[in-house]
Amino acid sequence: MWGIIATWRMAREGVEKAGEQLAGGGSAADAIECAVREVEDFPYYKSVGYGGLPNEDMQVELDASFMNGDTLEFGAVGAAKNIANPVSVARALAHGDANNLLVGAGAEKFADEMGFERKNMLTDRAKIHYARRVAEEGGRLPNAARVLGEPEAEQETARGAMPEKDARPGIDQEGTNPEGHDTVGMVCLDASGTITAATSTSGLFMKHAGRVGDSSIPGSGFYADSDAGGSASTGLGEDVMKGCVGYEIVRLMATGLHPQQACEQAIATFTEVLKRKRGHAGDISFVAMDAQGRWGAASNIEGFSFVVQTENEPACVYLAHPQPDGTCAHEVASQEWQDEYMRSRMAPPV
Amino acid sequence: MWGIIATWRMAREGVEKAGEQLAGGGSAADAIECAVREVEDFPYYKSVGYGGLPNEDMQVELDASFMNGDTLEFGAVGAAKNIANPVSVARALAHGDANNLLVGAGAEKFADEMGFERKNMLTDRAKIHYARRVAEEGGRLPNAARVLGEPEAEQETARGAMPEKDARPGIDQEGTNPEGHDTVGMVCLDASGTITAATSTSGLFMKHAGRVGDSSIPGSGFYADSDAGGSASTGLGEDVMKGCVGYEIVRLMATGLHPQQACEQAIATFTEVLKRKRGHAGDISFVAMDAQGRWGAASNIEGFSFVVQTENEPACVYLAHPQPDGTCAHEVASQEWQDEYMRSRMAPPV
Repeated sequence: MWGIIATWRMAREGVEKAGEQLAGGGSAADAIECAVREVEDFPYYKSVGYGGLPNEDMQVELDASFMNGDTLEFGAVGAAKNIANPVSVARALAHGDANNLLVGAGAEKFADEMGFERKNMLTDRAKIHYARRVAEEGGRLPNAARVLGEPEAEQETARGAMPEKDARPGIDQEGTNPEGHDTVGMVCLDASGTITAATSTSGLFMKHAGRVGDSSIPGSGFYADSDAGGSASTGLGEDVMKGCVGYEIVRLMATGLHPQQACEQAIATFTEVLKRKRGHAGDISFVAMDAQGRWGAASNIEGFSFVVQTENEPACVYLAHPQPDGTCAHEVASQEWQDEYMRSRMAPPV
Repeated sequence: MWGIIATWRMAREGVEKAGEQLAGGGSAADAIECAVREVEDFPYYKSVGYGGLPNEDMQVELDASFMNGDTLEFGAVGAAKNIANPVSVARALAHGDANNLLVGAGAEKFADEMGFERKNMLTDRAKIHYARRVAEEGGRLPNAARVLGEPEAEQETARGAMPEKDARPGIDQEGTNPEGHDTVGMVCLDASGTITAATSTSGLFMKHAGRVGDSSIPGSGFYADSDAGGSASTGLGEDVMKGCVGYEIVRLMATGLHPQQACEQAIATFTEVLKRKRGHAGDISFVAMDAQGRWGAASNIEGFSFVVQTENEPACVYLAHPQPDGTCAHEVASQEWQDEYMRSRMAPPV
């Protein structure tokens, strides 16, 4: 049995490429890296890789990870600039006993040492989004108020870090949604039984310089154990990190839960914990696959899409619909929905 | 009930200060920050704060964290340079919905914005250690071989990242031990029932620039939930991160386990997983305290010391002795042992 599952419609083309590899006996490590690179390279997804939206300083800072479920070895980069394919650097870090998570200039130094391609990841399109946001803030950067010590500053900063809240009332458009962020996260199982997980993102639009989200953090934005299963997330990284939700999902699969139950239970339970302890919970969405190739996907928001392909089913895009009881219904995304997804992302920026 | 528990003998003076605060009704947030700062400021501990050993580029890069168990809010810095008290910056980051983990130059920018003290953290003593290590390596930096692409390079790099393996055959001396690293990690409970966790470290000696360890990662090097308990670690961060051991210990306490059982079970189980999947396991040591002020400490190595003080017991330094059955015996550290600990740390570097 082999299979691959990934967050968001944007992963479809990559998943199909990975599916070809897996069908031909390719490894879960090669297939998942190939699939994530496909998303990183596509310039119109503004939350992953090239074309990703910048931080408060108009710098594109990238988070990415790779985990090998056979050995639990992981590699990750955080807040790294000008790296064409951060997931490949993450994979190169998933060896040895130490130095597996590298951030900032140190991650870039490693990428240079290893000969990885450098690339200016800031597109003209992303610059237009940045300029528009600065204009919306009255020419003031999101964190400027905090520097001045204004009483309202902290809350405003937190709001400012949320991507384009008001511009998108319904389903996510152009790779963002009201309370979270569109990370590409994947889990892959190959015919030999190896499970891998990987993520890649440019993180929250207008984030503070140096901000690292859950996509770089094993057990939060991703986890893989070939004996149980793997998980990968998208959403508000800081909330995922508060509950180690990626680890929890794999732990639940290890106790025998189906990946769907594991995702639903972990997300619903922790969303309630956040609401009780903090009054609110950010977006949390996960995909998961277990060692038998069974898969699951759940979310605490409407509008989460995902892509899955296995030995038994061709690549398919689904929409997840959270139910009041904590379960999550899946609907096959119509061709019309998928066409609109691509049209909205490739339309000229307003 | 109030209490505080911390990794390593080096935390004793800080724990005693925190104990005074807690006895007087101080908060777990203030007390733990005060206790960690005490360790950061002491120049002779070469694995935490001022006096910490540098990375491969002779730069002291600091990891630190703070977590509020009432809200699950955390703040953390990773690979941050020239910050006098990284734990205080971490605490300042434990607010708001996003931007809670900042690394590298971005973390330093935040510290500057908030007015935190800058300090050159590299001492003459640390420079002597660095020069000695470079000389031991034949004048070659640990990662230089990797740049040249030598076949043995990767393994050598991993070994090179381990602090002073051969120099210390027995119990840890001068703040390091053969397979891990002496992070200060603490858990604190105040009379109002709030649990906090905090960590601070300069990380592995000769680490790659930008390396972030478990001390910055919620659920790995630290975790706190006032409904259950808190945990904090020291050891080989990359191995702790493979198993989200900090989260697992708190999760086990939430199921009703005593903190001692929770630490023993999580460490012993995951050490076996690492040995089975990777052939070996690095140092993993944890301290924990639950919502009733009960405490635990366990390790998979000989020589782990810790300090605890509660409403019912004065500050005491213990040594942990792992047993073949996965439990861990505690021995009160003699005055002679404690004197030798300080003497070895304050002796002139060889």
